[in-house]
Amino acid sequence: MASDLVLYSYWRSSAAFRVRIALNLKGLRYETRAVHLVRDGGEQHSPAYAALNPQELVPTLVDGDRVLTQSLAIVEYLDETHPEPPLLPKDPAGRARVRALAQLVACDIHPIGNLRVLQEIGKAFGADDEQKSAWMRHWVAMGLQAFEATLVNGKETGRYCHGDTPGLADLCLVPQVYNARRWKVPLGDYPTILRIDAACAALDAFHRAMPEQQPDAPSPGA
Amino acid sequence: MASDLVLYSYWRSSAAFRVRIALNLKGLRYETRAVHLVRDGGEQHSPAYAALNPQELVPTLVDGDRVLTQSLAIVEYLDETHPEPPLLPKDPAGRARVRALAQLVACDIHPIGNLRVLQEIGKAFGADDEQKSAWMRHWVAMGLQAFEATLVNGKETGRYCHGDTPGLADLCLVPQVYNARRWKVPLGDYPTILRIDAACAALDAFHRAMPEQQPDAPSPGA
Repeated sequence: MASDLVLYSYWRSSAAFRVRIALNLKGLRYETRAVHLVRDGGEQHSPAYAALNPQELVPTLVDGDRVLTQSLAIVEYLDETHPEPPLLPKDPAGRARVRALAQLVACDIHPIGNLRVLQEIGKAFGADDEQKSAWMRHWVAMGLQAFEATLVNGKETGRYCHGDTPGLADLCLVPQVYNARRWKVPLGDYPTILRIDAACAALDAFHRAMPEQQPDAPSPGA
Repeated sequence: MASDLVLYSYWRSSAAFRVRIALNLKGLRYETRAVHLVRDGGEQHSPAYAALNPQELVPTLVDGDRVLTQSLAIVEYLDETHPEPPLLPKDPAGRARVRALAQLVACDIHPIGNLRVLQEIGKAFGADDEQKSAWMRHWVAMGLQAFEATLVNGKETGRYCHGDTPGLADLCLVPQVYNARRWKVPLGDYPTILRIDAACAALDAFHRAMPEQQPDAPSPGA
């Protein structure tokens, strides 16, 4: 039952953001349980949460008695259990293209700049805030450049990353662009990405998934 | 046609290793084109290769006129275009479990210790070889610990990561264990991983995919 869905989330987590978009695109209701990644040393490291998710990362989706981890695996699970509207095209080549775009973000940009990696470059190499920002900008720019090139070169690129309906690649791209803005990565070289990001932002499913819309987001005046 | 498959590969790349295992499990013949990741500043940065793969990473699989990137997307493409033997279970929950294990490796271990990241911590922070090794050991151990916990806690764990046939999770695990041995990560705390790694090593499809078996591997005396 849709009402049994519980998402362990953090408002600013890119990976949780992806799953929130997917849940919204599918029209599924879910309960958010906030996991604060910084407070008290990180609630994701609590024994209760680690028992659900041994990686001690968000998100985790609980669907009845099933505990699901890894954002892309969760999104494909939702797509298989609730096929409409589809988040992947039907043809194997199209599916491979969409998955590759999603993985470009989820494997090759996001994990290298995740909170735990930034903490570790501080600890291991004494990186200060400016060096951490430079680290982020380096990897995000490199990844977005390849993403843009793939969009420009692909005749399948439409209003969204693949054709004219939003899907798996878009729900990875939008949180990454949000993250890029947070880290002040210049985005002028990626006009196709910006166009698709704007098209997604106009959709209610994406808007409601935004970090600032989450129950655990700090209030604007805080 | 199977004989049209061309894999751009590097003998010691974990991501290419995954795709080689998948091709072998499917019984597909393919031509290897070696991309040397270090020589001449890295052949993956050549304009000809970058035109195929804008990320300038291996592997790339060419299937006729289709150019496929990202190892997990390639493996799922092979599974969809050549369904037997399947590399994923049939049930959505099982598929999500296998994909999550694969992504634990492919998103949260491997990219953080990839060649380009090791090069960058040297360049940005002056990390020496010992610090690079410590960096690798840190992330590999953290990831394998969570992988082991998932295997131990999951009643679906069998002779392989999911039941008694090898699949997507196994073909990610084995290259990661190979990589862990290369970086001298102690593996004694991961008995289930070691048992599954040994079961896979006994299979011809895995053996033929090993780095040392590749046409571009240095000869033993070199």
